[in-house]
Amino acid sequence: MAIHREGVHHRSKSSYAYAYDEETVHVRLRTMRGDVAECTLLHGDKFDWPDSATRTRMERIGRDERFDYWQVSVRPPRRRLCYAFHLSDGDESLWVTEWGFESKPLSELPTAGERRPLHYFEYPFLHPTDVHDPPEWVSDAVFYQIFPERFANGDPERSPESVEEWGGEPTLDNFFGGDLQGIIDNLDYLEDLGVSALYLTPIFESRSNHKYNTTDYTSVDPHFGDEETLRQLTEQAHDRGIRVMLDAVFNHCGREFEPFQDVVENGRESEYADWFHVHEFPIEFEPRPNYDTFGFEAYMPKLNTENPEVKEYLLDVAAYWVDEIGIDGWRLDVADEVDHAFWRELREEVKAIDPDVYILGEIWHDSRAWLRGDQFDAVMNYPFSYAVIDFLIERDLDAGEFADKATRFLGRYPEQVNEVLFNLLGSHDTPRLLYRCDGDERLLRLAFLLLFTYRGTPCLYYGDEVGMTGGDDPDCRRPMVWDEAEQNTALREFVQRLIVLRDDHRPLRRGRIRFDRERTTSDLLVYRRADGDETVGIAINRGDDQAVVEPTDEQWETLLRTDADSGGVDAVDGRIVVPPRGGVVWR
Amino acid sequence: MAIHREGVHHRSKSSYAYAYDEETVHVRLRTMRGDVAECTLLHGDKFDWPDSATRTRMERIGRDERFDYWQVSVRPPRRRLCYAFHLSDGDESLWVTEWGFESKPLSELPTAGERRPLHYFEYPFLHPTDVHDPPEWVSDAVFYQIFPERFANGDPERSPESVEEWGGEPTLDNFFGGDLQGIIDNLDYLEDLGVSALYLTPIFESRSNHKYNTTDYTSVDPHFGDEETLRQLTEQAHDRGIRVMLDAVFNHCGREFEPFQDVVENGRESEYADWFHVHEFPIEFEPRPNYDTFGFEAYMPKLNTENPEVKEYLLDVAAYWVDEIGIDGWRLDVADEVDHAFWRELREEVKAIDPDVYILGEIWHDSRAWLRGDQFDAVMNYPFSYAVIDFLIERDLDAGEFADKATRFLGRYPEQVNEVLFNLLGSHDTPRLLYRCDGDERLLRLAFLLLFTYRGTPCLYYGDEVGMTGGDDPDCRRPMVWDEAEQNTALREFVQRLIVLRDDHRPLRRGRIRFDRERTTSDLLVYRRADGDETVGIAINRGDDQAVVEPTDEQWETLLRTDADSGGVDAVDGRIVVPPRGGVVWR
Repeated sequence: MAIHREGVHHRSKSSYAYAYDEETVHVRLRTMRGDVAECTLLHGDKFDWPDSATRTRMERIGRDERFDYWQVSVRPPRRRLCYAFHLSDGDESLWVTEWGFESKPLSELPTAGERRPLHYFEYPFLHPTDVHDPPEWVSDAVFYQIFPERFANGDPERSPESVEEWGGEPTLDNFFGGDLQGIIDNLDYLEDLGVSALYLTPIFESRSNHKYNTTDYTSVDPHFGDEETLRQLTEQAHDRGIRVMLDAVFNHCGREFEPFQDVVENGRESEYADWFHVHEFPIEFEPRPNYDTFGFEAYMPKLNTENPEVKEYLLDVAAYWVDEIGIDGWRLDVADEVDHAFWRELREEVKAIDPDVYILGEIWHDSRAWLRGDQFDAVMNYPFSYAVIDFLIERDLDAGEFADKATRFLGRYPEQVNEVLFNLLGSHDTPRLLYRCDGDERLLRLAFLLLFTYRGTPCLYYGDEVGMTGGDDPDCRRPMVWDEAEQNTALREFVQRLIVLRDDHRPLRRGRIRFDRERTTSDLLVYRRADGDETVGIAINRGDDQAVVEPTDEQWETLLRTDADSGGVDAVDGRIVVPPRGGVVWR
Repeated sequence: MAIHREGVHHRSKSSYAYAYDEETVHVRLRTMRGDVAECTLLHGDKFDWPDSATRTRMERIGRDERFDYWQVSVRPPRRRLCYAFHLSDGDESLWVTEWGFESKPLSELPTAGERRPLHYFEYPFLHPTDVHDPPEWVSDAVFYQIFPERFANGDPERSPESVEEWGGEPTLDNFFGGDLQGIIDNLDYLEDLGVSALYLTPIFESRSNHKYNTTDYTSVDPHFGDEETLRQLTEQAHDRGIRVMLDAVFNHCGREFEPFQDVVENGRESEYADWFHVHEFPIEFEPRPNYDTFGFEAYMPKLNTENPEVKEYLLDVAAYWVDEIGIDGWRLDVADEVDHAFWRELREEVKAIDPDVYILGEIWHDSRAWLRGDQFDAVMNYPFSYAVIDFLIERDLDAGEFADKATRFLGRYPEQVNEVLFNLLGSHDTPRLLYRCDGDERLLRLAFLLLFTYRGTPCLYYGDEVGMTGGDDPDCRRPMVWDEAEQNTALREFVQRLIVLRDDHRPLRRGRIRFDRERTTSDLLVYRRADGDETVGIAINRGDDQAVVEPTDEQWETLLRTDADSGGVDAVDGRIVVPPRGGVVWR
């Protein structure tokens, strides 16, 4: 059987060859599924080829419906890497170089650096400054997303006049009085739950309840508190080891943003005329705005982030809250509709103050263009959310197909990015998970289990842990349920156990993920997370029947079962029992 | 026959989907060769999907041994583009989305922006600042590369003491006295030849004849002239409409560079200790240098371009010569071994002074990571050189295989980059073309014809036009032959005609290239360049027999033949005659 050349893919300086750290380059290759028995990397220094060239075997790190993915980690002693791949399937032997495919023996290939200087692939030089290096703490973090207007009302005097009773039904524009003091008051709850980072949707001055239409980037919204409240929140969170990430809405402002108001009033004469993308003056709001907006929302004028004045203004804002308050992250709203040049400068500005600030882009699709190390640390991993929903809830994907999609998604980014991808199962922009599960708590637990044992940094959406439900916005933004009688406390305890599990087992935070195709069936997904000597196994059974998994080792112990609080058996005949619509973690 | 999904490739924000200009996005798709009869792009604004979604047919722009390449140009009215592909082969109908493949009818696919916001591909927003926009003039330019020490001695008083007689044999370290005045003195020659831009290898102070080991970046080498001579050269060239590009050697300096000397003398105590990558002090040169170098050359210490002081120093140098002398381009030596962050700053710095400065990287391999618009305008197109050599001289590739390789290379970059790629057939770093041709002038002419009719900006290496020969460095750096008796003047006139041809026919400078597979045979390559109403055809016959080409139109006229000065027939029976080892251009 011939090796299918059309399935072979590699490109240097991409997720197929990248600096993992200041000394290490990861090299990946894609081949057609099942085509290749062995894959080795021939690598060396092009200026010292005959003496330095060595062959290293690559590991098959994943497989999807069409391809196998191979990877190897190399440490070029002089930081220069020149390389080619050798594929073999028993019968055929094939070299893959940048120039093309060659069936010749190695001795007949050109020598790197001479005769044919462009023949091989090159990762020409590893520079520390170009290494994508997300903050260390994010890998270990568990995030908790708060929509502040709906989390807790800690300071009723700050509530809007029109405030409605806590627990009422959210509409697009009503208010319930949630504020920063409410978060401070509940830090004990959050600490007890075990989360280690908060993501707050916007808190700066704005007339809406969601505050994605900023009036003033320099003030905390008076209904939420003031700069001092924010400082208190951050300090008290930090005292508990909890980080705070805020939401930066730099794609657009609110209609009441002063510079925009000035343009509304003075048109072309306004000194802020170039702060926006106005197609013609005067400003008109209907039928469609005659200026660029987010979507077609007249109340959200798009900012001209290419204008140096706007850039300076927004970068100062980004720097101010890091510098003054010591926040730990910026989540960048509508990040894909702002220019790359702006984000590069934002990264430089913010990381110069504190390299540990997590820069997280809101991008729903493939985000490679933003994840090269010069812009974001990570993005919100919605592709993961939808794959989980399709597998567990919609059943559009079976377990093998989920593993296929997941493998493809994991291949998009370098390892260090996958480790801090912001994994979520819902947000203020989607229906709640329990709503999607149609109230089926077993599926909800199963999805949580997947979230907390998957590669990347998990984020809980406020209230999901106590069984809150709700459809699309505004329904997914109901006030937090604080009355214990109305809370699903068993679910909350299950989430607590998941967090403890993750904290206790490094492979769940740092380990690579490997899907176990042999043990995976249509309804049963099996995968492993491994780091150093420890390997943790996970089985996710979406089926209505109990499943069993043959352990790979004789010795194993169950770490967690989704049905542990309702009984359930660990093992039958030495095999791991996975409950219907349930999951098990073992090691 | 099913459509082979494994051959389908697309990725947004890459050479498969990029901003061509401030209003236009080019979208490309790759499919398996011959798999797909029709390919259409479904595209629209995700915030207005049902009303904006339209289908546009894609054009098959190329084919190689394995794949077909499709392209379409779209102008999203609000600069937001959401899209999917539809493939059909007569029997099968297939949608390609970012999520995967779907055989469903369109009506059953999710609506963009709702339900499944990440389903489609997106080019989320087109920002002018992110558009890769190389200088306009480069598309029309013909470059001429000069190795100044060997071009002409215009000021013998400036010659080194050890200067040898013009016309002697070059060694690695001898001198012939070429200088900037020599270039000034021969601007008439260059203007007459028709070139419109000069690329000078390094001219700053350095002890070697090639000057790639800089002693002082702020002074013109005294053997070459001084700042005033450089100003004269630039002004007088500009007066003739000839641009001047200099060589920036920022990867490494020379051993005599003062900061390095300071480190040699003072070791760790030197204020310049961090300007280099010294593994241990004191500095040792042997057996291998204990500091990073270019290759293993002790006399070329690698500069630490990540050090802000070094960065500032070099960026000031880059800015100075643009600002003070008004040079038109920087060719960046060993560009792939310097960090991306440095090049981004260099681009900003230089383009802020003059956006028309051409930034050209010396990179021999696939250069996508440097050609995203934030670093270089173009790179030296050595893959083109080697493909031409393999086709015409080595005969490792037949004409069809040349077209395959060329198609693959053209697919690497956006159109606007291909239009200014620095195409060359040799340089100071390679054997001369005539040497490679083993003296066969017919092949040489044929290669020139390919160079001047190919997509991209051609560059001649000094003296190739008069029939100079020479093997690898130092032999390829012989003194320019000025004695007309020793010059191949017929060849020079042929080159002149090629330049005039290119100047006279816009398709040869701006038009897309399309290989004519039907007319291409093993020895005969046929392609077209088209722009607006004009189409130019080119036939390259490497064979020893005359070939004929069936024209596509009844009306055609020959524009140029490689054998025009030795007779030859234009047509037989209405078909175009292509001489043995010769070529024809017609329209």
